[in-house]
Amino acid sequence: MRGKALVMLGLLLDADAERGRAQDLPASYGETSRQVLARALVDEAGWKKLDHLTTRIGHRLSGSPGLEKAIAWAHESMKAEGLEGVRLQPVRVPRWVRGRESLRVVSPVPRELPVLGLGMSVGTPVQGITAPVVVVRHEDELAALGREKVAGKIVAFTPDWEGYGRTVRFRSAGASLAARLGAVAALVRSATGRSIGSPHTGSLTYAEGVPRIPAAAITVEDAEWLRRMAAAGETVTVALAMEARLEGEGDSANVIAEIRGREQPDEIVVMGGHYDSWDVGQGAHDDGCASMAAWQALTLLKEMGLRPRRTLRLVLWTNEENGLGGGRAYHAGLGGDFTSHVAAIEMDGGCERPVGFGFSLLKPGEPRARRGESRPSEPTDPKAVAALATLREIGALFESIDATTVRWGGGGADIGPLMREGVPGLSLNTVGEHYFDWHHSHGDTLDKVQPDDLRRATGMLAVMGYLLADMPGRLGP
Amino acid sequence: MRGKALVMLGLLLDADAERGRAQDLPASYGETSRQVLARALVDEAGWKKLDHLTTRIGHRLSGSPGLEKAIAWAHESMKAEGLEGVRLQPVRVPRWVRGRESLRVVSPVPRELPVLGLGMSVGTPVQGITAPVVVVRHEDELAALGREKVAGKIVAFTPDWEGYGRTVRFRSAGASLAARLGAVAALVRSATGRSIGSPHTGSLTYAEGVPRIPAAAITVEDAEWLRRMAAAGETVTVALAMEARLEGEGDSANVIAEIRGREQPDEIVVMGGHYDSWDVGQGAHDDGCASMAAWQALTLLKEMGLRPRRTLRLVLWTNEENGLGGGRAYHAGLGGDFTSHVAAIEMDGGCERPVGFGFSLLKPGEPRARRGESRPSEPTDPKAVAALATLREIGALFESIDATTVRWGGGGADIGPLMREGVPGLSLNTVGEHYFDWHHSHGDTLDKVQPDDLRRATGMLAVMGYLLADMPGRLGP
Repeated sequence: MRGKALVMLGLLLDADAERGRAQDLPASYGETSRQVLARALVDEAGWKKLDHLTTRIGHRLSGSPGLEKAIAWAHESMKAEGLEGVRLQPVRVPRWVRGRESLRVVSPVPRELPVLGLGMSVGTPVQGITAPVVVVRHEDELAALGREKVAGKIVAFTPDWEGYGRTVRFRSAGASLAARLGAVAALVRSATGRSIGSPHTGSLTYAEGVPRIPAAAITVEDAEWLRRMAAAGETVTVALAMEARLEGEGDSANVIAEIRGREQPDEIVVMGGHYDSWDVGQGAHDDGCASMAAWQALTLLKEMGLRPRRTLRLVLWTNEENGLGGGRAYHAGLGGDFTSHVAAIEMDGGCERPVGFGFSLLKPGEPRARRGESRPSEPTDPKAVAALATLREIGALFESIDATTVRWGGGGADIGPLMREGVPGLSLNTVGEHYFDWHHSHGDTLDKVQPDDLRRATGMLAVMGYLLADMPGRLGP
Repeated sequence: MRGKALVMLGLLLDADAERGRAQDLPASYGETSRQVLARALVDEAGWKKLDHLTTRIGHRLSGSPGLEKAIAWAHESMKAEGLEGVRLQPVRVPRWVRGRESLRVVSPVPRELPVLGLGMSVGTPVQGITAPVVVVRHEDELAALGREKVAGKIVAFTPDWEGYGRTVRFRSAGASLAARLGAVAALVRSATGRSIGSPHTGSLTYAEGVPRIPAAAITVEDAEWLRRMAAAGETVTVALAMEARLEGEGDSANVIAEIRGREQPDEIVVMGGHYDSWDVGQGAHDDGCASMAAWQALTLLKEMGLRPRRTLRLVLWTNEENGLGGGRAYHAGLGGDFTSHVAAIEMDGGCERPVGFGFSLLKPGEPRARRGESRPSEPTDPKAVAALATLREIGALFESIDATTVRWGGGGADIGPLMREGVPGLSLNTVGEHYFDWHHSHGDTLDKVQPDDLRRATGMLAVMGYLLADMPGRLGP
């Protein structure tokens, strides 16, 4: 009887979805979400977790002792909290090691420059690489110079700042662009709009069939300086020394915990953040805070005795920063059964004041929009329209913390493989005022996180995770 | 006849001063100041000077090739501009050399920390100093620990940020405070309110009769981290290595140029900034911009054919940062004749948007108020009251650029020796929003200076310098 009623309900909901209409949510959700938010807004344990992670453990690059320590601590703590299905999902990860590094202007004005080698870069010979710098703003200026003016030189990419999404390509691809023309190393303006002499690292990707040259991030200040020197007709010669190396692969893991569904435990809402970080600062905003918010959201729901219809699963993904191995392993671990996943939520845009959620529903194989690309217009597919309308009804429950905006366009790198299988993907969005000031730098530390912002994110993830796992119909198709 | 009239005028003005009343300024000063400001606001040559100084020459620590290059360039350029009395005043300066330096957490979480040794610090042995860190907020916490808990340790001063004036004492005096109790090195929170993993250097002063231990600035982030570790009961052990050393003394100079007075050339208004800087960044806000503003102010007055009654003298002082040798040499060079100096203007608070001037008139021997001390109440001495009233009449001429505020309390380190002789001292004040974010760090670079702010400062120094040199009576007693 009960089964039949649910099938009937499902058919009704599907009919709503075909018409692009929001689901009717149970009236009780208003009170439930108020209770969860109220509990989260006075929570102290989430902050204690983040304090422990950043203060006592510190940064957590894939394959580093820091990440291994963090994984063991979360695994043990989740078991101690009595969460269900606590387990480690093994993931092989690259072991990239920075080593010592330095960048020195040799002429015309000898001085030391702050520097951070780019993640996954090769190192220099022990004696370093000393060469004149060729300064370009972008690919076209580099191409215009041609091999004759670039070969044997160090190329410095000094793009105008047009936001992270549009500017980060020089960090990702600059080394190989320069190497194609015979450059011996690359320097890249840090992908940030604000700087106090602060270099920002991040991954590069070497193109196939192109020599792998060392690449490092310089500060905004020194990028501006190099541009001015070039404009004045002065040639700057620098010496770059980097011990960076890839030491094969190591063992790592996604950390997983759940609240099992009371009716459809095999249907899953997965939520989390990435647990690894760069090897500078403390990985507080990227992405320790979100990881702790998602974990604490699960913990609070358990403490409040809220068991949703479906399973709500927490994943702390490993290796987002330099490989995406954690997200791929999670996807592969599903053995092709993606219909089990009702929705996926990833928070990875820093932990400033939350303003709402972003949402995407991709057709299988459709690429996820990248950060910084122009925001997609509203969806036209009726199922996406219906899901977005439902999410906006849930979003309205965040009125008391002024975080009701649900935008079309969302997701995250670790849930990207799921989203490309058609799983609805959400991100928690923040005001995003300063995230990229700190991102991948020595400045990404606990002192930049406001405890109340962590509490709000915790509450919003708890409400969104719980309701998506509990509501009568599935969110997406 | 003319001489007698001036004596009469002087007596009248003195009578006004005795009554604490402003001088009557010639009505023509309104039009003159409008013309000077208008010229300055479209000036491009001042920016070109600052660009050359910061981009092509760079930072300028006392005794360094950079400062010598900067002095030679200014000297030649001032002569080429046809300024009068262009000369170098020899000054012996310390040659402190930073060398390589590193700070590494050894346990419990190995990592590299951004660091800048403090200016004038001794270095460590070649193998560095490895010791546990004792974390204190201030002198009282250190004293409470006592020798038993401090001896053999590295003391980290992690004060709350209460503004530069109140917080900088740990940088100045922390090393000797710690050494008195047997500490082997000192770390000091950078004296700034904002940080993106940015250490800030600056001078320390060793107390007499206390062992000289190495001292270095750590970032705000790492100071906060050390505090949290201490609160958690964790002992942090670090390894500090510094090659810092004092290499005796070297030759340097104050750079001087003038517009000679048309009536009383032996009465002098002196204005300028300090030309030396720390050995990181480009010394753009501290104090390259002010130096170039004062120089360009003189240049513009000359170009406009404005020759004041008295002599207006520009001085680019050397060695403000680590010795004050330039200011002392200038004072000593006057041979005891301080009545020749009608007023002294120093701009050394960064080059943000100007808001007006500060003014002090000390009784001989009275110490100048330090930055950050509570602002002195309005003066009561009739001569100071009269001078302040006159300056406020001049300040009103900056209405069009919203910079009319003349506060009681001003001056500068290089004109301090003159002020203590009773010479009226002025500073150009700015909004001061971000100066200490950049001050003494890799971030003090040209990109932080707004050309229009430099232009405004140039115009204000030109107007103030010209009017103080031209007005019928002397400003002070």
